[in-house]
Amino acid sequence: MIKIGIVGGTGYTGVELLRLLAQHPHAELVAITSRKEAGLSVADMFPSLRTRVDLKFTDPSDAPLKQCDVVFFATPHGVAMEQARELLNAGVKVIDLAADFRLKDAAEFERWYKTAHQCTDLLAEAVYGLPEVNREAIRAARLIGLPGCYPTSVQLGLLPVLEHGGLVDTSSLIADCKSGVSGAGRKAEVPILLAEAGDNFKAYSVPGHRHWPEITQGLKAIAQLAGKAQGANDLKIAFVPHLTPMIRGIHSTLYARVLGHAQGFDFQRLYEQRFASEPFVDVLPAGSHPETRSVRGSNFVRIALHRPPDSDLLVILVVEDNLVKGASGQGVQVMNIMFGLPETAGLSQLPVMP
Amino acid sequence: MIKIGIVGGTGYTGVELLRLLAQHPHAELVAITSRKEAGLSVADMFPSLRTRVDLKFTDPSDAPLKQCDVVFFATPHGVAMEQARELLNAGVKVIDLAADFRLKDAAEFERWYKTAHQCTDLLAEAVYGLPEVNREAIRAARLIGLPGCYPTSVQLGLLPVLEHGGLVDTSSLIADCKSGVSGAGRKAEVPILLAEAGDNFKAYSVPGHRHWPEITQGLKAIAQLAGKAQGANDLKIAFVPHLTPMIRGIHSTLYARVLGHAQGFDFQRLYEQRFASEPFVDVLPAGSHPETRSVRGSNFVRIALHRPPDSDLLVILVVEDNLVKGASGQGVQVMNIMFGLPETAGLSQLPVMP
Amino acid sequence: MIKIGIVGGTGYTGVELLRLLAQHPHAELVAITSRKEAGLSVADMFPSLRTRVDLKFTDPSDAPLKQCDVVFFATPHGVAMEQARELLNAGVKVIDLAADFRLKDAAEFERWYKTAHQCTDLLAEAVYGLPEVNREAIRAARLIGLPGCYPTSVQLGLLPVLEHGGLVDTSSLIADCKSGVSGAGRKAEVPILLAEAGDNFKAYSVPGHRHWPEITQGLKAIAQLAGKAQGANDLKIAFVPHLTPMIRGIHSTLYARVLGHAQGFDFQRLYEQRFASEPFVDVLPAGSHPETRSVRGSNFVRIALHRPPDSDLLVILVVEDNLVKGASGQGVQVMNIMFGLPETAGLSQLPVMP
Amino acid sequence: MIKIGIVGGTGYTGVELLRLLAQHPHAELVAITSRKEAGLSVADMFPSLRTRVDLKFTDPSDAPLKQCDVVFFATPHGVAMEQARELLNAGVKVIDLAADFRLKDAAEFERWYKTAHQCTDLLAEAVYGLPEVNREAIRAARLIGLPGCYPTSVQLGLLPVLEHGGLVDTSSLIADCKSGVSGAGRKAEVPILLAEAGDNFKAYSVPGHRHWPEITQGLKAIAQLAGKAQGANDLKIAFVPHLTPMIRGIHSTLYARVLGHAQGFDFQRLYEQRFASEPFVDVLPAGSHPETRSVRGSNFVRIALHRPPDSDLLVILVVEDNLVKGASGQGVQVMNIMFGLPETAGLSQLPVMP
Repeated sequence: MIKIGIVGGTGYTGVELLRLLAQHPHAELVAITSRKEAGLSVADMFPSLRTRVDLKFTDPSDAPLKQCDVVFFATPHGVAMEQARELLNAGVKVIDLAADFRLKDAAEFERWYKTAHQCTDLLAEAVYGLPEVNREAIRAARLIGLPGCYPTSVQLGLLPVLEHGGLVDTSSLIADCKSGVSGAGRKAEVPILLAEAGDNFKAYSVPGHRHWPEITQGLKAIAQLAGKAQGANDLKIAFVPHLTPMIRGIHSTLYARVLGHAQGFDFQRLYEQRFASEPFVDVLPAGSHPETRSVRGSNFVRIALHRPPDSDLLVILVVEDNLVKGASGQGVQVMNIMFGLPETAGLSQLPVMP
Repeated sequence: MIKIGIVGGTGYTGVELLRLLAQHPHAELVAITSRKEAGLSVADMFPSLRTRVDLKFTDPSDAPLKQCDVVFFATPHGVAMEQARELLNAGVKVIDLAADFRLKDAAEFERWYKTAHQCTDLLAEAVYGLPEVNREAIRAARLIGLPGCYPTSVQLGLLPVLEHGGLVDTSSLIADCKSGVSGAGRKAEVPILLAEAGDNFKAYSVPGHRHWPEITQGLKAIAQLAGKAQGANDLKIAFVPHLTPMIRGIHSTLYARVLGHAQGFDFQRLYEQRFASEPFVDVLPAGSHPETRSVRGSNFVRIALHRPPDSDLLVILVVEDNLVKGASGQGVQVMNIMFGLPETAGLSQLPVMP
Repeated sequence: MIKIGIVGGTGYTGVELLRLLAQHPHAELVAITSRKEAGLSVADMFPSLRTRVDLKFTDPSDAPLKQCDVVFFATPHGVAMEQARELLNAGVKVIDLAADFRLKDAAEFERWYKTAHQCTDLLAEAVYGLPEVNREAIRAARLIGLPGCYPTSVQLGLLPVLEHGGLVDTSSLIADCKSGVSGAGRKAEVPILLAEAGDNFKAYSVPGHRHWPEITQGLKAIAQLAGKAQGANDLKIAFVPHLTPMIRGIHSTLYARVLGHAQGFDFQRLYEQRFASEPFVDVLPAGSHPETRSVRGSNFVRIALHRPPDSDLLVILVVEDNLVKGASGQGVQVMNIMFGLPETAGLSQLPVMP
Repeated sequence: MIKIGIVGGTGYTGVELLRLLAQHPHAELVAITSRKEAGLSVADMFPSLRTRVDLKFTDPSDAPLKQCDVVFFATPHGVAMEQARELLNAGVKVIDLAADFRLKDAAEFERWYKTAHQCTDLLAEAVYGLPEVNREAIRAARLIGLPGCYPTSVQLGLLPVLEHGGLVDTSSLIADCKSGVSGAGRKAEVPILLAEAGDNFKAYSVPGHRHWPEITQGLKAIAQLAGKAQGANDLKIAFVPHLTPMIRGIHSTLYARVLGHAQGFDFQRLYEQRFASEPFVDVLPAGSHPETRSVRGSNFVRIALHRPPDSDLLVILVVEDNLVKGASGQGVQVMNIMFGLPETAGLSQLPVMP
């Protein structure tokens, strides 16, 4: 059994980790920390876990995190970069669900997160935890920066065309993304109240969202890894996120201009082949429209491709559960890879529909 | 492996059975029928099942139902009572999720369902599939009438006081129940459109709902089984169902007048003791308010008790997922009992929260 | 034109007052205060008011409230009782939408609101602003304590039977109430986030809600005003509020035991006659089930009556928009009465459906 | 008073017309037809209209439509084109809320609506009822084809840049649109059930939606009217509609590539100037993100402009209430113009928020 610690378990990614790990055949929850809730039974805060999780929240200073095999950080950004070194030195692997180890450029991190990075050497070592791109590096990693929810869907949606190269204009990509409100976290903020966000729809952060540099970095890395330097160098993407009156789910609608010579290319086949052996990426039949609920509560991503009439666009529709494949489920998938377990261990739940 | 057939799998209880059984360690899905959708892949209708369920819908006349160990009817009422005999004669056990084998009195059935019962002898044999009441009878049964969603929550909520007897006035019970819209089924009807039922709340069927005679019959049976003839004879309950703008979940608020001599009785202890060994009934600490989402997607029922200020009432709050413990999950639980499997087999999913 | 000031206009009752008053033919908005938002244009906070409201929030100390004819307090409790005297002394009428002038007993106020009352003499003078009960007193009043949202629906629902007397057992009343989340206010609190309260249903505050003493006081006052001393003395009501995943709307399901001799009484006729001349109380035809959306955005209350089968209960279904008849609309109605305007002035909007 | 008839008033655009016209100072509702509901009181079907609308549905053959000044068709497509001629001949003006008189090319109509057009001469005469584009033509018209809900938002959002010309690449426009479910109508269909469309998000009709040719035609007409022939000839737009789990509201996110020489152009000023005198088009301050609820129940459209970082795109965010400015409200606005009334008559309701 893998001994697991969770730092900061009172948010949605924390409770989702608990849900998944409590059902994982090889995981043993050892500690979960919360400064504010120390002493409280986890199941008193999250009754959905009653009868199955009997941990209490521990004060971070008391938690036996160094005796764990792996520690997840389900905290706001800024926490993992302060505590990772000590854990790594003690031989504990670290998976950060927040943003501390996503952006490779410390200056970019500081620009977007308004705080200096605390351990740029670890930043260099950290592996970006997107299995479909970095599986081998993950296998060997001690420290993972787990992708954001939006970036996971955008990168998986564009992966095959960027790896192939020469198919679309990489300088004019668009990601029009729609997220349920759980993506904003379990925070007491007026704009995500039911009476504010319910029966309502809006774009937000169009002038600049923190996931935009991560998306750009990730897409460039994909092209580069595939040896498509030009696609990487030219790459530009506009990212427009929207808040949708639902709880879980991200729907990314991606637009790419197909280059003239590639107008007749069989994109459907490319995607099906690329993801054929991926356990969690499901390419739908041509003509499909994936629904977010078709992945609710599961680690699946579903993708469908369209060529709208009288247009040179490729439209890629991607759905994921932002708390599973967009966060905690991906964390478990990465953990499975790091520890040589079957990649689907603990992730076999079927989506809850309706 | 238990060979399983499902008649009528295109509704919500059907797809929920598929979700649960596809994850069941001892279940083998053999056939699922639909006259209208024969030939269609189940996963084409329900993409949430893609990669895990590869059955096609079969025409009822072609389905190898007699080679199954058990057949579930996830149909409207009136279907099971026409087909049950032939299956039973072939040695197949039958679990009806509809209403054909719930009401013991054929005249009552005809009054509420506007059709004569087709096999009153089987009605006499059928066991009411509420494990917390009828576990031993279920173990021996060939034919199960599975409780309705509302009746499950109301009966479990009142079970301890009725079994104990002498605590509350059984002639003035009230069940004020609130259901998500999936309880109305996957039917093309205007009142359950999102644009009609969303951001809206209403009572319905106050003059008489089909679950009312079932609730009355069930509560009387509980009192009688416990030897509380008076409680049974006097028993009357008013049932007021409401439609709530959510998808899954039932919240039953039950009111019972505590008899004068029982004002100081420790109801909390009674409930905790009665359900201590029940795997799916969870009595919350005193003072709690259960939420429907705390059981979403799971087979749990959670119950909390209150004594409102300056009142002789006992208020019992009960939550369940109407599609799991209120239908398909209870069906799997009953199947497990019938086949000598661990009662929780295939039902270990934790609730999806948020 | 009546000169109007609003203290504390950043919450839902404040913005709803603005919506209604901006469309009122005899109202002139003079000032709206907010300490925190002083200087901000109201329409910048609430874009729904753009092009129609061009006030800015003023600091309370700068606002010309004494030059108003009437000042509304759309604040948390505790504010109006500190500022009312000065305004009244300046000849300004005061309508408090919060709780400061609802409970007549200062000790009860202190018990439920955890703060001593600041002006018990004004409390004695204040009129409870429920027009259907206190129309004449409102006409003459300087100071109004406006009813809470739940109490409005419960009192209107029980008004005819209490005034008539001798029809129901007033010692065993039950109010099972369901509210949309806007009733909890525009406050940054976790339990009313969309990701918490959405697709979810729960009871809350069953051990004691602040509206319970107000309901009890109001119902007793109704019986007493009608000369039904016994009904008043005996009166007890259990109040169980629930949080519903919708934005606006309250649905109160009221239960009263019909006395033996009154079993054949024509309650439908009683209600129709009692409310025949009330502009905002609509008694639906027998057998109806009112929906909250049928009053969304309007000052209407709709009521339907039922006698469930095999029961001595009268079930009264009441719907209102908690922000209109349950708060700001009632405030405008009361203002109209105080100033001798047509009672429906500014309140003629039809419900928004769907 | 203008005498008004409504053909087919049982859908959402019908009841919305009734809500608006019942509050219109110069409108007199004379007849509303429904074959299926003939004889039923309108308020029995739509209790939100109780006490204010006392019409009954009339059978179309009995309705005094020829005595009206104007008849609205709130029917499915195919009805108005069969009945318009007779009404026009009788001197009655006709406003069709469906699609019969939108597409100018009868072949296109037949291609998208699968039925031959019945009166191509009237099609030639019909005026496209978008006041911001065609105000003068509307003033003189007898027959109006009212724009679809999506096309209204897309055309208003692109109007200033197309009229100006030379600013954006008109051959690569994108409209990523999100609609609440009331846009699909009050029809008993499974995909728009609350249990299907709730807590869910999906694109639909990406291979071709009926509003796409209308959008293309409308945008070309705008450019042509402004003398921008090149912009019109080149014009191509991809249209991707999405279903959002809310009741009312459309949010259109429009993407246009700014031409090289226009990178520094002041789009904000262009939009503010263009719409300065439009009573229902509100250009928000730079940097804003309009919300659909900010127009709920009102005839407003709100627009905001963005230039995302490191991109040559102009992003235009447009919100409208699909049932008001996207249908019935626009119909009333057009009627006001046709009859020389103030354009805002009957349309002064403020949005209902929250």
